[in-house]
Amino acid sequence: MRVLGVDPGLTRCGIGVVEGVAGRPLTMLGVGVVRTPVDADLSHRLLAVEAGIEQWLDEHRPECVAVERVFSQHNVRTVMGTAQASAVAMLCAARRGLPVALHTPSEVKAAVTGSGRADKAQVGAMVTRLLRLSAPPKPADAADALALAVCHIWRAPAQNRLQQAAARLRAGAPTPPKGRTA
Amino acid sequence: MRVLGVDPGLTRCGIGVVEGVAGRPLTMLGVGVVRTPVDADLSHRLLAVEAGIEQWLDEHRPECVAVERVFSQHNVRTVMGTAQASAVAMLCAARRGLPVALHTPSEVKAAVTGSGRADKAQVGAMVTRLLRLSAPPKPADAADALALAVCHIWRAPAQNRLQQAAARLRAGAPTPPKGRTA
Repeated sequence: MRVLGVDPGLTRCGIGVVEGVAGRPLTMLGVGVVRTPVDADLSHRLLAVEAGIEQWLDEHRPECVAVERVFSQHNVRTVMGTAQASAVAMLCAARRGLPVALHTPSEVKAAVTGSGRADKAQVGAMVTRLLRLSAPPKPADAADALALAVCHIWRAPAQNRLQQAAARLRAGAPTPPKGRTA
Repeated sequence: MRVLGVDPGLTRCGIGVVEGVAGRPLTMLGVGVVRTPVDADLSHRLLAVEAGIEQWLDEHRPECVAVERVFSQHNVRTVMGTAQASAVAMLCAARRGLPVALHTPSEVKAAVTGSGRADKAQVGAMVTRLLRLSAPPKPADAADALALAVCHIWRAPAQNRLQQAAARLRAGAPTPPKGRTA
């Protein structure tokens, strides 16, 4: 599975592409940041984010896009820009028919470090180790995007089972016998 | 000037198209709502908002798009969807090279009713009167989108003067003599 992770932001939108399956060593295919000028018009910044993400999608052809789920507990101004950048990322993926998965920051931290409250340095260190890199990717947004992609690859099998069960429930079909594993 | 107003939302995104200039009677060219199913995937809802807005832009070819500026004081879950729908609207406009103007809800209310704290009914009543409609547009999101377009037509001359003055300041050029009016 090839996943493009997006740590959404207007000033710096982190992008990381990871390939692999759960339980096997993963491979980093690319990492970087889409930047937009802080003094530009908001609509032009969104356009620049779109162009940047489109370029990454064209180049790496992922099967799935994982985006950080945005909460509005944080700084009000920042969070609106983050929500808007995440909308652009989701839109670019949906337009290509790619599935979009959202993971919360604590799900991502818990997946790669074992703790939902790990700090940036810990996430960077684990991403470096898991993807066998020579140094932690900079800036932190780039490392976070890789962590998101890793998280998605590891969580996807469980998420798929949940989604299939929910779809069966909605369709009124019987659930599979207990104890069955995919 | 032909303005497409957008009252952003995922469940109901209000759209209103108004033509005219400040100081003259205005004309409504169209009003409606883009709806997306609440149980759909977020990325597919954003895609549906994009398709709906594109259709309005194709049909009415506005010169400018006015979008409600989103604040995060309100309900957390709602505001994220609103911010994301507004990002899609801004992106659609910017892609076509159309200028995007943002107005706050209180600017819009003050423009059409004289009070920044007017209620929905008052805004609906004034939109009906100003655009010489036979009844207030329903739902409120549609009326709000028209109010936004009216607000933009009325505020645009002042906003343009401010932007030109700011551009002159940035360029280090002298400001025009005092007392001059555009």
